[in-house]
Amino acid sequence: MARTTITRLRTMASQDRGELDRLLDSVHIGHFALMAEDGHPVVLPTAVARDGDRMLAHGSTGSGWMRRLAAGAPASLAVTSFDALVVARSAFESSMRYRSAVIFGQCTPLTDPDEKLRALDTVVEALLPGRLAEVRRPTPKELASTLVLALPIAEWSLKVSGGWPDDPPEDCAGPAWAGVIPVHVRYGAPIPAPDLRAGIPVPGSVRRIHDSPV
Amino acid sequence: MARTTITRLRTMASQDRGELDRLLDSVHIGHFALMAEDGHPVVLPTAVARDGDRMLAHGSTGSGWMRRLAAGAPASLAVTSFDALVVARSAFESSMRYRSAVIFGQCTPLTDPDEKLRALDTVVEALLPGRLAEVRRPTPKELASTLVLALPIAEWSLKVSGGWPDDPPEDCAGPAWAGVIPVHVRYGAPIPAPDLRAGIPVPGSVRRIHDSPV
Repeated sequence: MARTTITRLRTMASQDRGELDRLLDSVHIGHFALMAEDGHPVVLPTAVARDGDRMLAHGSTGSGWMRRLAAGAPASLAVTSFDALVVARSAFESSMRYRSAVIFGQCTPLTDPDEKLRALDTVVEALLPGRLAEVRRPTPKELASTLVLALPIAEWSLKVSGGWPDDPPEDCAGPAWAGVIPVHVRYGAPIPAPDLRAGIPVPGSVRRIHDSPV
Repeated sequence: MARTTITRLRTMASQDRGELDRLLDSVHIGHFALMAEDGHPVVLPTAVARDGDRMLAHGSTGSGWMRRLAAGAPASLAVTSFDALVVARSAFESSMRYRSAVIFGQCTPLTDPDEKLRALDTVVEALLPGRLAEVRRPTPKELASTLVLALPIAEWSLKVSGGWPDDPPEDCAGPAWAGVIPVHVRYGAPIPAPDLRAGIPVPGSVRRIHDSPV
């Protein structure tokens, strides 16, 4: 499994499945790499959600890339969190705190309607906890037009960079500041749709997520 | 250029270079897709910065993926911004506001030391405006151990999803709330390094970026 071996200096490889799951559960956008028909590698950003030992993605049955993934094209999925700027005393040592997971494998399309429905429920709850109880679930027609893909969490790598500037003594003795600037990703105040009927209150799921980390 | 043609329903393709540049200038993490030696597509998150008509990335000369990109492996680079949750009255219509650019092509390694230095200066300023005047610039040895890649912004696609829930009339007439929940990405308060010498004030670049959007 050479492609899951970390070879870079100064990156910290982790085999901690709990740490992997925390990353996969806190970042809602993933990037799939796959090969186009012409052999060129393409990258496809899409919403993702973890469901136990697999990652779920969904899209329209009209999407060529989704269909290609569903057909079992070899793929990689990256889930990345940019956590802080690391401000060192030199340009060379300046870097980022980040967590980065890459999962390798092939997607399987979910075909059983009940399993698709459960998977889409999982996506709804992952993106907006509590929303499932408030929202209209898919009709059979909507379900039929949605492709739901599962990628097993089996072959993966996780890199975590959480450190401080690693400046040599001569730079530490100099006048430059060093530290980190954390990145905060939070949900802002909800904005009602222009066509929302009067008298419909902001639901619990939306109230609770306001000002919480994404 | 079939791979830059948008085929998905309900996505808005943009050919607006100004809009592309605004996205590329506001997101600092990109995802490269390329092919591994075994033919499997891999995805590589890395810091990126726009320099006119090209995207810059850099890394250690010890990084196999960087060397593969430097050797001219066909590649795609995605730069993605997740801007809001779109909370519709049904699970099916719920989605995200996002901006997503994908650039296709081949990277070129910068070999001229002066050009490399200028490119790394551009990266420093893109990530933390004003930092260049405060920081020690690379030594010849540091420069030699850094691979700097340029990807031309020539063949690209841009998708912008900025809309409101698109619920059918029967759902709009129902009791469910609809709207958007914006995602705010901001820099928090700087944290000094544990080995920072006493009496070194927080520099202007770091003061100015606090509480500003990433």
